[in-house]
Amino acid sequence: MTSERRRDPLSGEWRTMATHRQTRTFLPPESSCPLCPTRDAAHPTEVPWPEFDIAVFDNRFPSLTADPPSSQSRPGSPYDVAPSLGATEVIVYSDDHGAALTSLGLDRLQLLVDVWAERYAALGSRDDVEYVFVFENRGEAVGVTLDHPHGQVYAYPEVPPVPARELAVARAHLAEHGTCVLCDVVGAERFAEVRLVAQNDAFLAFVPFAARFPYEVHVVAKRHASSLLDLSDIERRALAAMLHEVVAGYDQLFEFRLPYVMSMHQAPTCDGDWQVISHFHIEFTPVHRSYDRLKYLAGSELGAGAFLNDVMPEQAAADLRAAGTAAAPSAGTPAAGTAAAPAAEPQPAGT
Amino acid sequence: MTSERRRDPLSGEWRTMATHRQTRTFLPPESSCPLCPTRDAAHPTEVPWPEFDIAVFDNRFPSLTADPPSSQSRPGSPYDVAPSLGATEVIVYSDDHGAALTSLGLDRLQLLVDVWAERYAALGSRDDVEYVFVFENRGEAVGVTLDHPHGQVYAYPEVPPVPARELAVARAHLAEHGTCVLCDVVGAERFAEVRLVAQNDAFLAFVPFAARFPYEVHVVAKRHASSLLDLSDIERRALAAMLHEVVAGYDQLFEFRLPYVMSMHQAPTCDGDWQVISHFHIEFTPVHRSYDRLKYLAGSELGAGAFLNDVMPEQAAADLRAAGTAAAPSAGTPAAGTAAAPAAEPQPAGT
Repeated sequence: MTSERRRDPLSGEWRTMATHRQTRTFLPPESSCPLCPTRDAAHPTEVPWPEFDIAVFDNRFPSLTADPPSSQSRPGSPYDVAPSLGATEVIVYSDDHGAALTSLGLDRLQLLVDVWAERYAALGSRDDVEYVFVFENRGEAVGVTLDHPHGQVYAYPEVPPVPARELAVARAHLAEHGTCVLCDVVGAERFAEVRLVAQNDAFLAFVPFAARFPYEVHVVAKRHASSLLDLSDIERRALAAMLHEVVAGYDQLFEFRLPYVMSMHQAPTCDGDWQVISHFHIEFTPVHRSYDRLKYLAGSELGAGAFLNDVMPEQAAADLRAAGTAAAPSAGTPAAGTAAAPAAEPQPAGT
Repeated sequence: MTSERRRDPLSGEWRTMATHRQTRTFLPPESSCPLCPTRDAAHPTEVPWPEFDIAVFDNRFPSLTADPPSSQSRPGSPYDVAPSLGATEVIVYSDDHGAALTSLGLDRLQLLVDVWAERYAALGSRDDVEYVFVFENRGEAVGVTLDHPHGQVYAYPEVPPVPARELAVARAHLAEHGTCVLCDVVGAERFAEVRLVAQNDAFLAFVPFAARFPYEVHVVAKRHASSLLDLSDIERRALAAMLHEVVAGYDQLFEFRLPYVMSMHQAPTCDGDWQVISHFHIEFTPVHRSYDRLKYLAGSELGAGAFLNDVMPEQAAADLRAAGTAAAPSAGTPAAGTAAAPAAEPQPAGT
């Protein structure tokens, strides 16, 4: 096993090399799912209990750990290296292999929000952790290797590139305008309405004005909360309800479980004025651009960082609103399906 | 048709919305390939000639154009918008639908380098163009919608995010160390040798020290040239030979045409001290992490910008060196194949 962090001299970004991940479990059948409960002691899984609500444990193929092999820059080399310090945890949403975020029910979803908050607090309290990143990869189209519903938490030893840039832009906005940029965005979206997908007392869901992905949706706290720890129980329940509504809308519109990456942006856990700069939000980035087409990151996105989007955000929001209205509040488990399934009206693609 | 550029307030990045691209031609059969020559006047393609060496024309589904519809920020809105100014050109490498970069021969490859240089100069001379980006998407795994061998050129009205960050890091490195960061990297790679894939008189090909993708390869000018326009004819021929060698090595190692994004990094074409800051290089980012597995950009990469790599760069370089030695100089057209083809020794995956 080799594991170390290396700083790219061209971009200044830290990257993690972890060769043991190459052999990780790949789409096992349900009968050998490592995230199912241990129902038979002769066949233990990663979760030692016969049943559970939500389970959290260290990733068996970690890229970052609390006690990594030592690694240091070579004398005379222009390259910086560092140990793979941090944490990578798995959060299993249910002991039911076939469950989905939308089938869990509101109480379980609120428990999930509480677990996220607890892991954010626990990992963030470590001196060697500067940023706790909660995320979920869903669906084979984004590379998921285990079907069982689950998310992940990574704890990084520095603020990673995307939130670092976002926080720098927010800091510059505050200096120039005296306001939080995301507070301004919330105000603009509530006023414009055309990109709204859903809202409740505490959260707004909308397709961002300059979306990278056709059906990208941001779930943003209406008031300036900087992390899950700032949210009251009532607000956490509102967040749980909003996550259900967004995902149910996706599944209703596409008529299959829409693959996505869900990324949670919270305040860094190192010293700093993050309460002022950071505004809690969750980004959903599904990779489909229509019922049977994916949005690929190719030359313009990967090489230049310049995103092209084929669907107007206002159109995507209208599609998602219409689907959300059609989705029952307790939608239950949507039928499994694939992108190759026959298209039905309304076609989610743009014009 | 709607087309406009929008600035994302969270990242500060400009993104392009172009809905007419949603209906673009998708993997047509060879008999209706729009990049083949027009051999029958009754069935014209995008190229009006019966035969050609290399053809350049405007993308029929452009995201950026010289004369875009007007677009301006709404009064009272916190969002910036701008017309989709720029250019998107297609460069067809051959009139042979089944050709590959490795089957073109060195003279044609050098002509391709000359065409790139010509388009860089022509588009870069426009007052409304600040950055000319040459790239190639190859293979369905990176979303290619036309099989015929071709690349593209985008001309952006500002320096896009990835090169902008790279140039800022190079500027900081110069201020701190008094040297070009990529000149330092070239020196380190020539000395270390472990990550080298190939070299000739003018160019070095190596797996970068902190590679994002397992089989990422950078082709870098040995001397400090800032763009193709700085290269002599001999150096351009050396570049052509190096591109052949890198791609032939990929195809030899994987035993199919390895899908990749190829991105060319040259000096911006707006005013600035780019001759000092910019060091010409080409980045190959193949999306395979082994013979039959792809590297997906998921939570850590897409949401946090923190890349995980499952293969050590030194191991990937050794694999590619071994494959390159086995590849004949004029390898001809490798057999087409898919990632699902049976794996053969040596397995390109890491340990």
